[in-house]
Amino acid sequence: MKLTYQGKTKDVYQREDGNYVLKFKDDVTGVDGVFDPGANTVGLSIEGAGKAGLKLTTYFFEQLNKQGIPTHFIDSHIDEQTMTVKPASVFGKGLEVICRYRAVGSFLRRYGLYAEENQPLDAFVEVTLKDDGREDPPITKDALAMLDILTKEEYETLKSLTQQIAGVIKAELAKKDIELYDIKFEFGRDQTTGDILLIDEISGGNMRAFKDGEYIEPLTLEKLFFQ
Amino acid sequence: MKLTYQGKTKDVYQREDGNYVLKFKDDVTGVDGVFDPGANTVGLSIEGAGKAGLKLTTYFFEQLNKQGIPTHFIDSHIDEQTMTVKPASVFGKGLEVICRYRAVGSFLRRYGLYAEENQPLDAFVEVTLKDDGREDPPITKDALAMLDILTKEEYETLKSLTQQIAGVIKAELAKKDIELYDIKFEFGRDQTTGDILLIDEISGGNMRAFKDGEYIEPLTLEKLFFQ
Repeated sequence: MKLTYQGKTKDVYQREDGNYVLKFKDDVTGVDGVFDPGANTVGLSIEGAGKAGLKLTTYFFEQLNKQGIPTHFIDSHIDEQTMTVKPASVFGKGLEVICRYRAVGSFLRRYGLYAEENQPLDAFVEVTLKDDGREDPPITKDALAMLDILTKEEYETLKSLTQQIAGVIKAELAKKDIELYDIKFEFGRDQTTGDILLIDEISGGNMRAFKDGEYIEPLTLEKLFFQ
Repeated sequence: MKLTYQGKTKDVYQREDGNYVLKFKDDVTGVDGVFDPGANTVGLSIEGAGKAGLKLTTYFFEQLNKQGIPTHFIDSHIDEQTMTVKPASVFGKGLEVICRYRAVGSFLRRYGLYAEENQPLDAFVEVTLKDDGREDPPITKDALAMLDILTKEEYETLKSLTQQIAGVIKAELAKKDIELYDIKFEFGRDQTTGDILLIDEISGGNMRAFKDGEYIEPLTLEKLFFQ
């Protein structure tokens, strides 16, 4: 296997059969030693962080694949902290697709004139560009099409997949009395078929989840979910 | 006539017949005595500013009305610096609708990873909320509908009216060898018929216009346009 990319929280290796292996590290993003899933720098290393992320990711991707929702997931080895995935190309230089069930975070910072904190939102989908230097700006369907990042048809597919996937995760969490407030996904194109696939991971760092009105820290989510 | 509102650059009076009179003032927005059409405070007073804005507004609204495009404009008296308009209600707490022909300003600040400065844009429309405290955040069609600000059908009407109106202004300016880079509009609902109307004004402060590659200051636009 050839190391092709060293990320903040994962290393990426290419296998000889063309698939990729993601190695989940114990490094987590944060600032000055404090964990912050939204940060763009590695803040600290937490023993077990990689395994916890991979366990949740594996569980959710397996559920999605079972339901016929296309993802890049092939299999994983929790002890080795590795996941094998299909090759996929991101849209443009990478998008984040967010599905919101409650008004919190950047939604509230932007639309606080019209929304109250925690107000229920009906699986509202929005897209942001991955662009650290410009603070991941939100972008519309029309702008994505005009800038040749996504066609309008692909946007609709992405939106509908996002609502479907978020619905699966929300229902899984609800079984453990955990409420999903919002979640972000990344998608790519299958390099063989051209189909749109869910890529990256689904773990505590991708979502805001609450139990009994209390925010669940990303690393606590895995413990609560599998207990 | 009853004074009903004192704005930064216009005062609003209600007439007995239900229509409104806008009195264009010589106060212009800016910061520390420097003119800035995008600022949210009155910066200084410039003799002739009110009249210049009203002359352009009158000219453009008359062109639009002639072409059957619905606006709030009834008539104006340049010497008195007044314009009579139909009553209209804004959407939510006010929207700005922008039509872009070149990548400059906030478009470039957001999407500079995918667009080059001055790159042609195909009458690209975007909507922002009027919310000084949150820096007029951009908002999508889906969010506008979810927050009950606009229906999806109204959004499409607004977008198509915006492109039509911007096209008229662009063609008018082109007759004087002036190139329109972008322009912002405000719309409202006719209080009698419920129709969507163009409201507010159309003058130098609403647009970025260039001649021979040079940016035209808002107050210079009126002189260049009518010379």
